[in-house]
Amino acid sequence: MPTLVLIRHGQSAWNLENRFTGWWDVDLTDQGVAEATAAGVLMKDKGLDFDQTYTSFQTRAIKTLNLALEAMGRLWLPTEKSWKLNERHYGGLTGLDKAETAALHGDDQVKIWRRSFDIPPPLPQEGSPWDLAQDVRYKGIPIPQTESLKDTIARVLPYWEERIAPDLRAGKRVLIAAHGNSLRALEKHLSGISDDEITGLEIPTGQPIVYELDDALNATDRYYLSER
Amino acid sequence: MPTLVLIRHGQSAWNLENRFTGWWDVDLTDQGVAEATAAGVLMKDKGLDFDQTYTSFQTRAIKTLNLALEAMGRLWLPTEKSWKLNERHYGGLTGLDKAETAALHGDDQVKIWRRSFDIPPPLPQEGSPWDLAQDVRYKGIPIPQTESLKDTIARVLPYWEERIAPDLRAGKRVLIAAHGNSLRALEKHLSGISDDEITGLEIPTGQPIVYELDDALNATDRYYLSER
Repeated sequence: MPTLVLIRHGQSAWNLENRFTGWWDVDLTDQGVAEATAAGVLMKDKGLDFDQTYTSFQTRAIKTLNLALEAMGRLWLPTEKSWKLNERHYGGLTGLDKAETAALHGDDQVKIWRRSFDIPPPLPQEGSPWDLAQDVRYKGIPIPQTESLKDTIARVLPYWEERIAPDLRAGKRVLIAAHGNSLRALEKHLSGISDDEITGLEIPTGQPIVYELDDALNATDRYYLSER
Repeated sequence: MPTLVLIRHGQSAWNLENRFTGWWDVDLTDQGVAEATAAGVLMKDKGLDFDQTYTSFQTRAIKTLNLALEAMGRLWLPTEKSWKLNERHYGGLTGLDKAETAALHGDDQVKIWRRSFDIPPPLPQEGSPWDLAQDVRYKGIPIPQTESLKDTIARVLPYWEERIAPDLRAGKRVLIAAHGNSLRALEKHLSGISDDEITGLEIPTGQPIVYELDDALNATDRYYLSER
């Protein structure tokens, strides 16, 4: 039976400051570091092990993976990093405080951007301090300018099919360290969650989520490792 | 012009204790962590950048790479980990204090094991606490039981030719974080050092070594980045 574990990065500086982060590359807080290490200790204590790991191009997810693997004595496992596992791109909201954004655009509009399935935030403004165009990590990559959750799903799922699912079908045990919305994309697919319901699925930071899958990679169980 | 940087892992617990380490998976000391981070800061300050990174299956080299990449803002770079970049396997000397080993076997014999080109240390003793046979990372891998430097070179160079050299020929800038003897193997090859001389080449911990290479991957210059 294939084993899949998902883990959202530990607390980041902007989780704490309540700012729209998206693709901005903020670091973990000390608490986020502790969460990541605790996740690794928990996985080790529960006897979980892996053959392949995946993460995004973003520091907070990569460090979460590395810290968890270190706690498990598994830093040597192969890791594939891809921008396709990045957080949802928040476009022109990137870097903005959520309360400020609400004051500017109104609560209702912000709620639409945050909670609608298919409405992307506005495009980034020119000259924004949160411009990603100069970030060398995305050189040559057709990166989005803004994304709805639907858009995020549309780049996560092909990556799942092309890269991750074949590993699981081959019997590899897989760990994915990623972000709230790239993990929503995977959970929606695996658990068959509707468009309306997926935007309300809250994924806690630093908590390993175990998926038990059948051979067709349909979920037969899904639980927080800390609760078993 | 291809860019290649080699870096030996920062100080490890057993560097400090003066024990034969080889494939035993000891961690970095606090000083080793600081060396790795300083190496990353130095590379960033000197304007070095990379497209591909390589390291061994051993925690001290992987952490050195990760810490240096973090200091450079380059944790997202792809990393390939291979046991073929591991330290020389010290066989039955693994875990032994160097002074104790000298008392047991005599200074001359220890010097032969440490400094000869083609004489491997004795095989591991059965029941040794430093037995690697149960280490899952090497499951299914035809790992050596002991190695001379010549043996180490014989597994490093094919990996260089198959995996690393093609990246350099394709114009990628490559960073390798590895070990005293796996780096000796590369330096011997790149700088054309004789069998007799290579065993005396000391490679300091945590110091980026820059190789400037021509298109045939022959070294045109080799220097410590801290000295330029």
